[in-house]
Amino acid sequence: MTVSLVGAGPGDPDLLTVRAARLLADAEIVVHDALVGDGVMALIPDHVERIDVGKRVGRPVPQEMISALLVELGAQGKRVVRLKGGDPFVFGRGGEEALALQAAGVEYDIIPGITSSIAAPAAAGVPVTHRGVSAGFTVVTGHRRPGEPDIDWRSLAKVGTTVVILMGVTHRAAIADELIAGGLPGDTPVAAVRFATTSDQDVVRCDLSELGAAPVESPATIVVGAVAAFDLRSVASLATTA
Amino acid sequence: MTVSLVGAGPGDPDLLTVRAARLLADAEIVVHDALVGDGVMALIPDHVERIDVGKRVGRPVPQEMISALLVELGAQGKRVVRLKGGDPFVFGRGGEEALALQAAGVEYDIIPGITSSIAAPAAAGVPVTHRGVSAGFTVVTGHRRPGEPDIDWRSLAKVGTTVVILMGVTHRAAIADELIAGGLPGDTPVAAVRFATTSDQDVVRCDLSELGAAPVESPATIVVGAVAAFDLRSVASLATTA
Repeated sequence: MTVSLVGAGPGDPDLLTVRAARLLADAEIVVHDALVGDGVMALIPDHVERIDVGKRVGRPVPQEMISALLVELGAQGKRVVRLKGGDPFVFGRGGEEALALQAAGVEYDIIPGITSSIAAPAAAGVPVTHRGVSAGFTVVTGHRRPGEPDIDWRSLAKVGTTVVILMGVTHRAAIADELIAGGLPGDTPVAAVRFATTSDQDVVRCDLSELGAAPVESPATIVVGAVAAFDLRSVASLATTA
Repeated sequence: MTVSLVGAGPGDPDLLTVRAARLLADAEIVVHDALVGDGVMALIPDHVERIDVGKRVGRPVPQEMISALLVELGAQGKRVVRLKGGDPFVFGRGGEEALALQAAGVEYDIIPGITSSIAAPAAAGVPVTHRGVSAGFTVVTGHRRPGEPDIDWRSLAKVGTTVVILMGVTHRAAIADELIAGGLPGDTPVAAVRFATTSDQDVVRCDLSELGAAPVESPATIVVGAVAAFDLRSVASLATTA
């Protein structure tokens, strides 16, 4: 396989998959974004070329250029790892890169990663489902781009699932208002988790009505629902025992 | 740590986390359920005791007995791995076991796994989110137990996310009817994936209106939404290259 689209998981290098760890060790080039944890980056051998296409580093690299880069490197037969935070298909734009590679006839593979949408709540002691409390969960992005299909937040409030919001810090006040307008009680528990599973992990807890004013900073995973009141043993200890 | 609640991922042993693989190698006892793949089970060293509490093996072991067993083994100071298919917190009842261990004062840890709710669609070439097509996904169980909170399927149909249904084969006709009654078009694409990421992987594709009559067998992951029409390169090849 020349190009592997690989999920790096939430941060802790111990939460890489076995296959991702092997691909990183064997790579010639790693094309990574900013959300990949330092501990994972440290696993890349020194001789491997790294290309940072991080969206938070200065001016972001347009997706079309990233896809074109992967096609070019893949066409050269290089062993390329495209390393993404979390899972490639959970807002990772893995589908776009896969389609570009497919159209160009470049061999590729997709390696799922542990998504932060589940692991970040878990690291804060919050199970996204729990018998008798939540029979499902919805993962949505709070970051609206032009041309993106809309989320009907008021209907979402009626479904009965835990709600997990990624990239929602900026619009959290408006999102909370919509969920409350849709019927979620203002005292619905919320947990916001940043830098999950690493030594920098930070958890803010509040009620849904307080979310807009709560001191939540990007990039946080925001969990809304009765399960957010749980405080099971944190998995954050993983990072220090790694 | 005495008891580790560990996600085994969707089936392919290469999709275990690095930490899960290490814990299995070091375990004294593995308490596992039926949804753990054969390839993962094969990684457990021969000398390690295995206890099968699988829900599909004859009469299921009641959850209270599983929790009590974990508490007992943990109190003996044994290195116990509680191995679950997918992720411990996605219908894995990891929260219940964690609460039981916490109440008994037994040390435990939670190791997330790759959830089939994302990896099974991916293995069929279906991204659960895709820019311009789906800005989120909802994971629900189609298996209703007494006392379980209800899912409002008609509201779910209005939210705009991809819908992923686990344990929904038996009630798939009724679920499809509810989603259509809620406004999803009858020709919404559906993909049902069984034994994802293993050599037995099997994918059935149909429209939502045909789901009730389609030849879908348990245990399948059912994906409903425009993304289900995608057919990106399968990750099923993982199992044969492992």
